[in-house]
Amino acid sequence: MNIAFIGLGRMGSAMVRNLLRAGHQVTVYNRTRDKAEALAAAGARVAESPADACQTAEAALTMLADDAALESTVFAEQGIAAGLAANAVHISHSTISTALARKLAEEHSKRNQHYLSVPVFGRPEAAEAQRLLVVAAGPAPIVDRCRPLFDAIGRQTFIAGSEPWQANTVKVCGNFMIASVLETFGEAFATLRKSGVDPKVFLEIMNSLFASPVYAGYGGIIVNEQFDPAGFALKLGLKDTRLVLAAAEECASPMPLASLIRDRFISAIAHGQGDLDWSSIARISALNAGL
Amino acid sequence: MNIAFIGLGRMGSAMVRNLLRAGHQVTVYNRTRDKAEALAAAGARVAESPADACQTAEAALTMLADDAALESTVFAEQGIAAGLAANAVHISHSTISTALARKLAEEHSKRNQHYLSVPVFGRPEAAEAQRLLVVAAGPAPIVDRCRPLFDAIGRQTFIAGSEPWQANTVKVCGNFMIASVLETFGEAFATLRKSGVDPKVFLEIMNSLFASPVYAGYGGIIVNEQFDPAGFALKLGLKDTRLVLAAAEECASPMPLASLIRDRFISAIAHGQGDLDWSSIARISALNAGL
Amino acid sequence: MNIAFIGLGRMGSAMVRNLLRAGHQVTVYNRTRDKAEALAAAGARVAESPADACQTAEAALTMLADDAALESTVFAEQGIAAGLAANAVHISHSTISTALARKLAEEHSKRNQHYLSVPVFGRPEAAEAQRLLVVAAGPAPIVDRCRPLFDAIGRQTFIAGSEPWQANTVKVCGNFMIASVLETFGEAFATLRKSGVDPKVFLEIMNSLFASPVYAGYGGIIVNEQFDPAGFALKLGLKDTRLVLAAAEECASPMPLASLIRDRFISAIAHGQGDLDWSSIARISALNAGL
Amino acid sequence: MNIAFIGLGRMGSAMVRNLLRAGHQVTVYNRTRDKAEALAAAGARVAESPADACQTAEAALTMLADDAALESTVFAEQGIAAGLAANAVHISHSTISTALARKLAEEHSKRNQHYLSVPVFGRPEAAEAQRLLVVAAGPAPIVDRCRPLFDAIGRQTFIAGSEPWQANTVKVCGNFMIASVLETFGEAFATLRKSGVDPKVFLEIMNSLFASPVYAGYGGIIVNEQFDPAGFALKLGLKDTRLVLAAAEECASPMPLASLIRDRFISAIAHGQGDLDWSSIARISALNAGL
Repeated sequence: MNIAFIGLGRMGSAMVRNLLRAGHQVTVYNRTRDKAEALAAAGARVAESPADACQTAEAALTMLADDAALESTVFAEQGIAAGLAANAVHISHSTISTALARKLAEEHSKRNQHYLSVPVFGRPEAAEAQRLLVVAAGPAPIVDRCRPLFDAIGRQTFIAGSEPWQANTVKVCGNFMIASVLETFGEAFATLRKSGVDPKVFLEIMNSLFASPVYAGYGGIIVNEQFDPAGFALKLGLKDTRLVLAAAEECASPMPLASLIRDRFISAIAHGQGDLDWSSIARISALNAGL
Repeated sequence: MNIAFIGLGRMGSAMVRNLLRAGHQVTVYNRTRDKAEALAAAGARVAESPADACQTAEAALTMLADDAALESTVFAEQGIAAGLAANAVHISHSTISTALARKLAEEHSKRNQHYLSVPVFGRPEAAEAQRLLVVAAGPAPIVDRCRPLFDAIGRQTFIAGSEPWQANTVKVCGNFMIASVLETFGEAFATLRKSGVDPKVFLEIMNSLFASPVYAGYGGIIVNEQFDPAGFALKLGLKDTRLVLAAAEECASPMPLASLIRDRFISAIAHGQGDLDWSSIARISALNAGL
Repeated sequence: MNIAFIGLGRMGSAMVRNLLRAGHQVTVYNRTRDKAEALAAAGARVAESPADACQTAEAALTMLADDAALESTVFAEQGIAAGLAANAVHISHSTISTALARKLAEEHSKRNQHYLSVPVFGRPEAAEAQRLLVVAAGPAPIVDRCRPLFDAIGRQTFIAGSEPWQANTVKVCGNFMIASVLETFGEAFATLRKSGVDPKVFLEIMNSLFASPVYAGYGGIIVNEQFDPAGFALKLGLKDTRLVLAAAEECASPMPLASLIRDRFISAIAHGQGDLDWSSIARISALNAGL
Repeated sequence: MNIAFIGLGRMGSAMVRNLLRAGHQVTVYNRTRDKAEALAAAGARVAESPADACQTAEAALTMLADDAALESTVFAEQGIAAGLAANAVHISHSTISTALARKLAEEHSKRNQHYLSVPVFGRPEAAEAQRLLVVAAGPAPIVDRCRPLFDAIGRQTFIAGSEPWQANTVKVCGNFMIASVLETFGEAFATLRKSGVDPKVFLEIMNSLFASPVYAGYGGIIVNEQFDPAGFALKLGLKDTRLVLAAAEECASPMPLASLIRDRFISAIAHGQGDLDWSSIARISALNAGL
């Protein structure tokens, strides 16, 4: 397919390389142009603006930091909404609010464009290896039309529903599942340390019990206090927790554990941990235990 | 070794069979005698009382329901403390409070007996298959002396510390790790259901993401509402949460997530779920979301 | 003073009557004109738009439902910002976000207008009786200039700081203080009812202990389940809790009790209580106790 | 009446003086004898043991620190149960668990003695001034018989129910109501301080709003950080919170705010605040906000 790709951070760049490998024609745009240039060698065309990137595209894929970045990229004068042809699709891979997803669906529809929310699970390494988990939502015929793109970037595609925002709910709930592991480890480690038990031994047992790469990975980071550089910055963890709480409030579902995690992240921000890895939330449990 | 084994529920009986298979001589005792008789065919001798079982034993192993059951079995007139020889070891496999573990260590010591806390992770099937995770704590020479017993019942033995109660802290923290998965699933599923997303799809994604048998197992039970018969009764889950909160309070470590889980279990008890599987805690999230 | 007053609900109308009584010239505007007409008999002039109301005003006072209502009233084509003279003051009495207060201060400043946040504590009856508690924040000279207005509507004026948004923080923290009384009563009453104790007896004791009209008032409403009609609608209580959490997040201060209250309100919304009195949050404690 | 009074701390001594003033004959006992001697001048007889104090008593009143102290005083060889005549009444004024209240009712009944739980609200100054709030529970005829005693020590008597433990539930719920004020102030003050608002101004507003001596008193202590010496030690606050959570768990009523308060007290203990005033819980909110 002939596609545009906007937002070339580590995740986006890896996805573009896989799309090119799969034989798609990709025009790229990034606010800082050097990241776009870097993909030219792999076969991407470099555009001057989002609208320019979209001109001949059947689909415009976006992978941006947050609601504000995506919204301005879509609705700017030279933005996606202005550049995308009728019947073409905007596929948002970003972790955004369900509210923005609904607005995008509505606004693209007014312009006879389509919109899908297709967030992904996986870190940059998984993106490089074409191992992302892809969660798609939107009208079934449009999802079907774009399947080759999902196959190019991930190892499996899941359908969350016919409303695009449903995929965003799945994504933020998934991130909540991971964040809760961090809080759980934080509390257990604090109690164990105050009891004179080596957290490494506990982690070894948990690795036998859960046998999960998520537990092994984050458990190891916390035990070894490897919070800097961040794999995923705590301030982004707070943002995602805000998103899951907002999604849950919209459908009147209270999530007290998500509230607890939000309070922990805020406390961590107050202690200057915003740029550390989000698993450094464990320090707040330690702090409250007097460690 | 020549050992006594007291407490022949599904876990205890499976452990006895493995100890016999490994060549140990086992004298068994159970309050309801038929469970003891059932092991005679496998080579166990049946005793008339805990004290009787302990008479010639180098080690007395106990696997009982809770603090009250263990305490009465140890300190009864015909109890373990009365029957065990000097220099012999009492090994408690039960999930008990750190407070009782400390009391047992002290009381056995007064009688020139030894005490180890050796709780295990694993369900009855794992016990049958000699696949338990064994967590031992106590004086190193005594732990070493009993290693053949741990090897006979489990796939791996971890040393939690030189104080017996430390193994109990590890055990209750481990159970807290599992309970928090239940709460996390409960909140996520409630939000997803209210958003019209099929929880089965979310579970499939989580299974790809976490790749953990714990998530697959409990996630499936919750999605399918298979709470009856209980694999692990909710009222026992509440008991264990009480234990982790007590252990944490003793060392002045607040665990707000454990507090949240406790409140959920209590609400579930109020709704008549005490004998359902502890994963039915998810119903309380659903209830609060108006489902 | 010559003033404009926009937003004539029960609170606003009562405030206008007191301003007129104190001898101020008041031009009023309300989206539904009949509420404005009703004040004409008391001496108010009725304007055609917010801008019209502001034309000759030294100060424009607003008492509107929420951020959205205030923002549109200020920035509409015929809005306050367009109509207010240079050096005149916009005084916002509404319970709004600290974020909007900051935006208003900035935008009015660009137009050489002044801005004060002056939220009030008190129900409509207190407004009628000139008994409001007035909390003012902004540059001291501007606050001083407007004091006669505060004296006309309230029994006491407090200065929260030199930044307008600080008064909004005070207001939402104050509402949080009240909301927490509701949650506290809810939990205590649930436990007492399940213990067979008459909540009325407990309330009587608390009235002796706290001797506070807030406790007597809300305690009575909850004990008698007088939630309809609402004195203050639960959905507005949720809005205010959102505001205090937002204000606290901006300054990195976690408020776990506010989070708990938010979760309760959301659960109450899920059970159809949005238009009942916010003290009906107590029903969620009862629900979780199986009552 | 001819009564025994055991437990002569500041509260108990004040109560004895009022009982003597009202014309009752009082025999006193205290573990450290000097506190008993101090009351001899006021007309009390000094006993050698609890049993000795009870010999001719129609009622034995106890005011002791906790469950352990009361239990040992009742069941010791020279304890109350041993000394009290048939048909005489044991009146426990202490803040104890509902579980112990039930045990006492049962044990006294076995000995043909009566038992009432009659906890009181009020600080030592209120006890001196005969201004306590008295909460009585037990069989109505026995409560009636003892009314002159309640009138002698307090300003008002409330009947909680016909089961003694119900008065203990009322007492611990009442203490929870106060503790929640401390947590509420702590969170609000942290947010206000981080917002640059003077907590004293906020307290003044709250004093106008709540008009409650409890708010004025504790608000002032927190604002001025007057935590030492403690009016009521934080470790006792933790004990009482444990009691309300236990009472609530017995009747299957979750109290998440009580859980939150418990976690705060534990964190305060971890920071060495056990002997400070319980209102120093506010420091934990400040800590989590990075103050």
